[in-house]
Amino acid sequence: MSETKNVSAAIIIVGNEILSGRTQDTNTGTIAQWLNSIGVKVNEVRVIPDIENTIIDTVNHLRKVNNYVFTTGGIGPTHDDITAQSISKAFNLKYEIHKEAFKILEAYYKVGEFNEGRQKMVWMPSNANLILNPTSGAPGFNIENVFCLPGVPSILKSMLGGLKNRVVGGDPILSHTISLKTVESEIANSLTNVQNNNKDVEIGSYPFFQAGKLGVSIVIRSEDQHKIEKCSSEILEFVNQKEIEVVIR
Amino acid sequence: MSETKNVSAAIIIVGNEILSGRTQDTNTGTIAQWLNSIGVKVNEVRVIPDIENTIIDTVNHLRKVNNYVFTTGGIGPTHDDITAQSISKAFNLKYEIHKEAFKILEAYYKVGEFNEGRQKMVWMPSNANLILNPTSGAPGFNIENVFCLPGVPSILKSMLGGLKNRVVGGDPILSHTISLKTVESEIANSLTNVQNNNKDVEIGSYPFFQAGKLGVSIVIRSEDQHKIEKCSSEILEFVNQKEIEVVIR
Repeated sequence: MSETKNVSAAIIIVGNEILSGRTQDTNTGTIAQWLNSIGVKVNEVRVIPDIENTIIDTVNHLRKVNNYVFTTGGIGPTHDDITAQSISKAFNLKYEIHKEAFKILEAYYKVGEFNEGRQKMVWMPSNANLILNPTSGAPGFNIENVFCLPGVPSILKSMLGGLKNRVVGGDPILSHTISLKTVESEIANSLTNVQNNNKDVEIGSYPFFQAGKLGVSIVIRSEDQHKIEKCSSEILEFVNQKEIEVVIR
Repeated sequence: MSETKNVSAAIIIVGNEILSGRTQDTNTGTIAQWLNSIGVKVNEVRVIPDIENTIIDTVNHLRKVNNYVFTTGGIGPTHDDITAQSISKAFNLKYEIHKEAFKILEAYYKVGEFNEGRQKMVWMPSNANLILNPTSGAPGFNIENVFCLPGVPSILKSMLGGLKNRVVGGDPILSHTISLKTVESEIANSLTNVQNNNKDVEIGSYPFFQAGKLGVSIVIRSEDQHKIEKCSSEILEFVNQKEIEVVIR
């Protein structure tokens, strides 16, 4: 197999409501699963408050150390939606009415309903590339390698498909899970040996509780299917020796 | 009212399984809600991979800019559990067997079951303060202002109570929610005015979908009940004027 190409991303969740524990973030999982499927590995997630300087500093740091950055939240019509204006400042771009976005929302709403509140949603960094929104009209946008999406999970989900050609991944990250009726401490040493034999494969061990029973899921991740298979057979070897039951989850 | 005392925290979620989207993090919400209830405000959450240098750098940065840091995950018995050894390096402390933790686990397991895998869980930074685990025996620990908890949500939850006297908050952060049958753009301008009148109160606006209907929850947060009440009545004033229905959620 040829050398693998690593493509990385960071996710920034903008939202006081996540930091206060009021709302459970699910956008991380949605974006991460989609990125994985197209060969982009998420290096880091940061949840930050609705504070302009924090957004600017976080975006400016992460966009330099990752191939892609995704932000969620803060692009709606209310006073606490400050992502677009913060991104403008991060890139030293004007924050202004985006003509194409204006046309889209003007056509989306009934006559007279495209009010001042809604018009705030077409203010963006100058020359932003729109990310179309098939659910509720108001587009997201991207500037260079930074992609700004809304915080409402169902709307965000519906917009990812439109990014297919703009986010280019490396080799897809493959994974294989082996679930066992055991506890971690029973397999810890054997699993360490397998990890040492296969240093460039990511092997994770995750306890689970199912129908009142304890178990462990071993997750093997790599861009190389052969490496996953080698690891998997080494794991099944000690599993058989120890007479541990493999379970279907 | 006397001047309020702000106490801040950061949460570090250590776990490749969250970054890959395989597992949905819920520990952020659990810890954030508990911290809020004792007057500690979460400034930032970072989800980072199981990489030693990343853990060290993240802990060393965040412990300097926050009153408290909480880590979750990576303190189990398997090879991918590297939080305790990383924290030792972050603080330049020996990574060694913790005698009290050893005694606890020796008593917890049946004779012969305290095997090598399980013994890994008593290796900690030198002189760590234990955080007792009423669910599954193996303790967490803290060094200075850094508190290390496990990743399994039910176990983590059961350990927070034991931290009551070690984590000292400021004035509790109070919140009041007003839910309306409207859309954000209808109230955006009025809400901006209220925010401008009440600059030191945090006002968030969050759309929701309930039983097929659109609504907006306005969340008012402050340490000062009087300020919340003032904001609340200003909001209800424009709500009444606009004849918007208040809903119970």
